This record gives sequence, structure tokens and C-alpha cells, in this order.
Amino acid sequence: MRVPVELSKAYRLLNHGPTVLISAEYGIQRNAMACAWAMPLDFDPPKVAVVIDRNTFTRGLVESSGRLAISVPCVAQARIVTLLGTHSGHEQDKLAAYEIQVLDEPLAQSPLIAGCVAWLDCVLIRRPEIEQAHDLFLAEVTHAWARTRVFSNGRWHFDTATDSLRTLHHVAGGHYFATGQEVDGHR
Amino acid sequence: MRVPVELSKAYRLLNHGPTVLISAEYGIQRNAMACAWAMPLDFDPPKVAVVIDRNTFTRGLVESSGRLAISVPCVAQARIVTLLGTHSGHEQDKLAAYEIQVLDEPLAQSPLIAGCVAWLDCVLIRRPEIEQAHDLFLAEVTHAWARTRVFSNGRWHFDTATDSLRTLHHVAGGHYFATGQEVDGHR
Repeated sequence: MRVPVELSKAYRLLNHGPTVLISAEYGIQRNAMACAWAMPLDFDPPKVAVVIDRNTFTRGLVESSGRLAISVPCVAQARIVTLLGTHSGHEQDKLAAYEIQVLDEPLAQSPLIAGCVAWLDCVLIRRPEIEQAHDLFLAEVTHAWARTRVFSNGRWHFDTATDSLRTLHHVAGGHYFATGQEVDGHR
Repeated sequence: MRVPVELSKAYRLLNHGPTVLISAEYGIQRNAMACAWAMPLDFDPPKVAVVIDRNTFTRGLVESSGRLAISVPCVAQARIVTLLGTHSGHEQDKLAAYEIQVLDEPLAQSPLIAGCVAWLDCVLIRRPEIEQAHDLFLAEVTHAWARTRVFSNGRWHFDTATDSLRTLHHVAGGHYFATGQEVDGHR
């Protein structure tokens, strides 16, 4: 089940450094790409920083719409994340080609990718100088959701769910680590 | 054993989204803080983006020296990471108080924290407008090293080492996930 995440807790969806999917739409075009370079930028209102290469098709959609969505994929989706990260929307409609579904979420203004475990809908904070120089985009999170099976009451709880719902951490070349064991930093 | 990491592969030390320690020194002062908001920004030359709150003591050292080091801590250090993230260098000399050792590495221009599994020595790329508005700092990596026990030939291999050398992914309040199982994104 997908439920809204309180905005003051939305940073926790990204705080552990998962690889994400960035998606955007403009007019009749939409696209999604894999992105390991995404992080929280502020707590409340929640903001994020993401790197979107200038050669990606998604980049144009983000710039034109002024918006993007972040979907947090899980181990079950590792192959599709790799495909979205190694093929370009300049070549094909990736969502159609890989039969990727978009959630029916009326509050979302950019496509949320089905099968993921968390989602953040965002509006760009325009900083043209760093967008141009470093492909770095800042955005404010306007809505967030998570699958209660692995995130509820502001906490991830992968240990009580199937391992296929753990989030992904890309290293290089389609090789990932799953999010692992809980560690208590007070002991 | 600590060995240099080829600069073109240095992004792989951060690509999986670990929580890191940021350290800096200026004059006779030095400090380290925990930071979950750090990510690669470019491949080669490698660059990084990190968020350094304006209230931290480290922030002043980074701004004054124009440099910072990123140390990637491991599960064995979870308690010290939490202490470095919940206490301020404004109150005390944290490195002395927690008996944290700095590596004797002649090439490093900022303190590298002992016991970690990877290190990136960096020089700031000054962007005063985003430093002021968003506490966001960009830097170029000038040298990188890793412990061969868990990183060699451009790859992490946590599975063949003790679990206490896995990297950490902070969620909130001193709760972390360890880096988990390898996932092949081509299957």
C-alpha cells in the first residue's frame, strides 16, 4: 500500500543514499533515467540535489517542465534500473519499450514509477549557473509517498519484509549493493 | 593496507551513497563531522557535492582553508560517527575528546580519519551563491585512497571481509544500515 510521507520526514527516503530513478514529462513526452547521484539538501521544507547529465533526454523534460519526480527502486527492479541507466530516451520511449507503469497518483505532477518503494514529487529551484556548469539540479519536494511494507511512521523497516524490497546502491556497471543490516550507532 | 585509488575510479568510493565524515583544518584547528549528504558530482576529474550546515565548526575550517577531506567510515565506527554527528567542534576538540587518530599521509592536505575504509582529499570549487543559500559545497578530488581489505582494482568487495568493514548509510537519529548484499543488475 502507498501512503503519503510527512514532508518533514521525506529526507529519510533518500538519507541512506539509494540509487533512484528520475522522471519528468513535458507535453506528450515523458521519460525516466537511473541516477546514483541524488541526495537530500534540506529537511523542512525538504529539498534535494540531483545530477542530470546534459546528454540525457530527461534533462530537457526537467528543464522544460521545471519539475521532476524521484522514485526509489528496489532489488526486484535492479534489471530495469540498469536498462533505464544504460539506454537513452533520445533513442526510444523507454517507459513503453520496457513496459514500465506509471502510478495513478492525482497529486503527482511528474511520472511516479510503479514497483518502487518510495516517491518524491519535486519542483525545481532554478540555479542556471550550476545546472550549466555541473549538471546539478536543486529541487523542493512537494509530495512524498512510500510503500508501507518497508517504510512507515518515518522509518524504513526492510528487515521485516522480503529482501526484494530492499533499496539499491549502485557502484558501477550495473553492480549494486542492497541496503543491508540495521546498525545502532549509539552502542 | 591503504593504497591510492586511481582518480577516474574515485567516484566509486561514494557512488553507493555511504554516510561520510567531513574533516578540515586551518591553522592549528581541525575538526571532523558526520555527513550523510554527500555525493559524486563528476567522474574525471572526480568532483563531489556535500552539504555542510552553517552552524558547524567544520564549515569555518572548510571556508578558510578552501579544502576538505572525506573519510568513508565503516560499521565498526558507527558509534564514533554518531558522536561526530551529534556534538559540535564549537564545544570541544572532538578529535581529541574521542581519541580519533588522523592518518600520517603526506599527500593529504586535510585530516584523514583513521579506521575508515576510504578517503578523498579535496579542494573546494567555490560557488559562494549556493554555499550561502543552500549550505552546498562543491569540490574536486585531488587524491583518493582505500583499504585493500574492502576496495581494490576499482571495486568494493565487502563480501570477502568482516562485516564490521561494511560502510554505513544513515537514516536518522543514529540509526544506520550497513551496505548489504551484492546485486547484479544485468539479470
